[in-house]
Amino acid sequence: MGEFDLIQQFFQSRSRELFPSFHADGSAAFAQIVQGIGDDCAIVQPPAAMQWAISSDMLVQGRHFLPDCDPYRLGHKALAVNLSDLAAAGAQPLGFTLAMALPAADAAWLAPFSEGLLALAAEHRCPLLGGDTTKGPLTLSITVFGQIPAGQALLRSGANVGDDIYVSGCVGEARLALDVQLGHVPIDNPVLRQHLIDRIEMPQPRLALGQALRGLATAAIDLSDGLMGDLGHILSASGVGAQVVADAVRQTSTIWHDPQLAAWSLERQNHYGLSGGDDYELAFTAPASLREQVAHAARQSHTPVHRIGQIVAGEGIELRDAHGNALPHAIRSFDHFNE
Amino acid sequence: MGEFDLIQQFFQSRSRELFPSFHADGSAAFAQIVQGIGDDCAIVQPPAAMQWAISSDMLVQGRHFLPDCDPYRLGHKALAVNLSDLAAAGAQPLGFTLAMALPAADAAWLAPFSEGLLALAAEHRCPLLGGDTTKGPLTLSITVFGQIPAGQALLRSGANVGDDIYVSGCVGEARLALDVQLGHVPIDNPVLRQHLIDRIEMPQPRLALGQALRGLATAAIDLSDGLMGDLGHILSASGVGAQVVADAVRQTSTIWHDPQLAAWSLERQNHYGLSGGDDYELAFTAPASLREQVAHAARQSHTPVHRIGQIVAGEGIELRDAHGNALPHAIRSFDHFNE
Repeated sequence: MGEFDLIQQFFQSRSRELFPSFHADGSAAFAQIVQGIGDDCAIVQPPAAMQWAISSDMLVQGRHFLPDCDPYRLGHKALAVNLSDLAAAGAQPLGFTLAMALPAADAAWLAPFSEGLLALAAEHRCPLLGGDTTKGPLTLSITVFGQIPAGQALLRSGANVGDDIYVSGCVGEARLALDVQLGHVPIDNPVLRQHLIDRIEMPQPRLALGQALRGLATAAIDLSDGLMGDLGHILSASGVGAQVVADAVRQTSTIWHDPQLAAWSLERQNHYGLSGGDDYELAFTAPASLREQVAHAARQSHTPVHRIGQIVAGEGIELRDAHGNALPHAIRSFDHFNE
Repeated sequence: MGEFDLIQQFFQSRSRELFPSFHADGSAAFAQIVQGIGDDCAIVQPPAAMQWAISSDMLVQGRHFLPDCDPYRLGHKALAVNLSDLAAAGAQPLGFTLAMALPAADAAWLAPFSEGLLALAAEHRCPLLGGDTTKGPLTLSITVFGQIPAGQALLRSGANVGDDIYVSGCVGEARLALDVQLGHVPIDNPVLRQHLIDRIEMPQPRLALGQALRGLATAAIDLSDGLMGDLGHILSASGVGAQVVADAVRQTSTIWHDPQLAAWSLERQNHYGLSGGDDYELAFTAPASLREQVAHAARQSHTPVHRIGQIVAGEGIELRDAHGNALPHAIRSFDHFNE
């Protein structure tokens, strides 16, 4: 199968089904797409008074995913990690481009890959606009576009002293899943094992929460490299410090009630939530006066959020136990070139 | 050097110098950039009444460039091939993202790479908005954004029977340069040799011409995979055929006057212009009634254009010699998975 055939078969035709320009009644479905896949550029008509949010992420085989990774799940995850950046900005998806290097034009791999990718795209009304296909070591590079009412983007730089610090969902589970996948941690309970594998392979971008937090959150980031490191980006961009309660982070996840894991030391359990990456949850800050509104945004977006600490003057993160005692920590963010 | 340090040193700081938000007099320089490099997303304020053009291209080492490729020139070319897609749409650049996999954080390579990349970005006022860096086989994935007044994008689908077919610049030189680089064709004349190497390593995206052709060209494409194949995309998108004069294509380039190359058969010379890729010139169609206006657009944009044939009813390309006799050809577009 040639390059143009495979684009046509697995991406262009299916995208046209999923993302028609017009509904059956003739009303505009995705009126912003003037020209989609199949020209030198995609042409998009932006809605008035909206700003654009743009983000790019690249996934490399052997680095971001294992060679035997299920292609449907890989398609899902490749887009999910990009949508997560839109979520962290409070943006609503508009579309994405996909550039990929493939070792071969393998229909048995491309069919489920494109299915997983486009299923998530359809769920979030985020049409595939175009891209590039070439031969090479399996590499997926996605750029996503979203829209935000002018001035309402959630940035990393707005956290203020006294703000609460929150995370969505459960942090640390994806990192434990990696240890399970690599065979470092055997898990006896098959339900727990599958839950963990789902958490690393099928992350759910928190788009509804991100949009619900516009006007409430003072700063936000998505958790890709680990809480301590990613929260550190908010702190340095905002010129503030943080106190984080380790127990509150651990308690975002119920997996520690499993008898096998409950037998671990607290320090070992805490490690996952504090420094584990790949969660694609949101960490954000909001004034303590807005706790009720934040809880409402969480309910409205069907997304659990947990308060894990607060912003203080100074810099860096002070880690505390449940009794307010300082805990030592030497946790840094994941860095592809310093491991 | 870590991932965040290298982004900071080679891309973020330099971009801020090249693309300040405000001029020294306080007026907006690139007012559309609300948030550039360093957050989850770049945030961009689009000008009113403009449509966006978006395109992604991926370059893989060993496939699109040789391992010993000069990093400054690679930085230039990686952005140039993307800007060429904006040129083909008639768009004006707004910015770009860069996702890259690097085998190592090598400052001696990154410094000239970022310099070549950002020099071309500055020349075309196309700021770096963000991106991603990871470890892996050297792979560069760029997404470019441009703007076009609503409804004025040049597409592939508008060619009409009777239209003239043009190409900009000289076609075929980049393909000959590849043969020189690979040692298949030794070139005696050192000036010619350097000219050819420059043509493949430092393509000049035809942005000024593309914008000048708005309202004149009925269809356009950039030449990346070879004239016959790329023109074929216009024909199939427009539902028409073409007559192309092989001599007119060859005569776009003066290299065939070089004594060494002039000794080659016409068939061998023609091959380069007709099926060679990597030129990043524009092929476009325009009504015969607009020849003067096309010539004016070419002068205004300081870009030579050459008429090479015309659109006819039917499908596919009839190749002719200077006397109007049909020439046999079996030339198809480059395809990464059918070589």
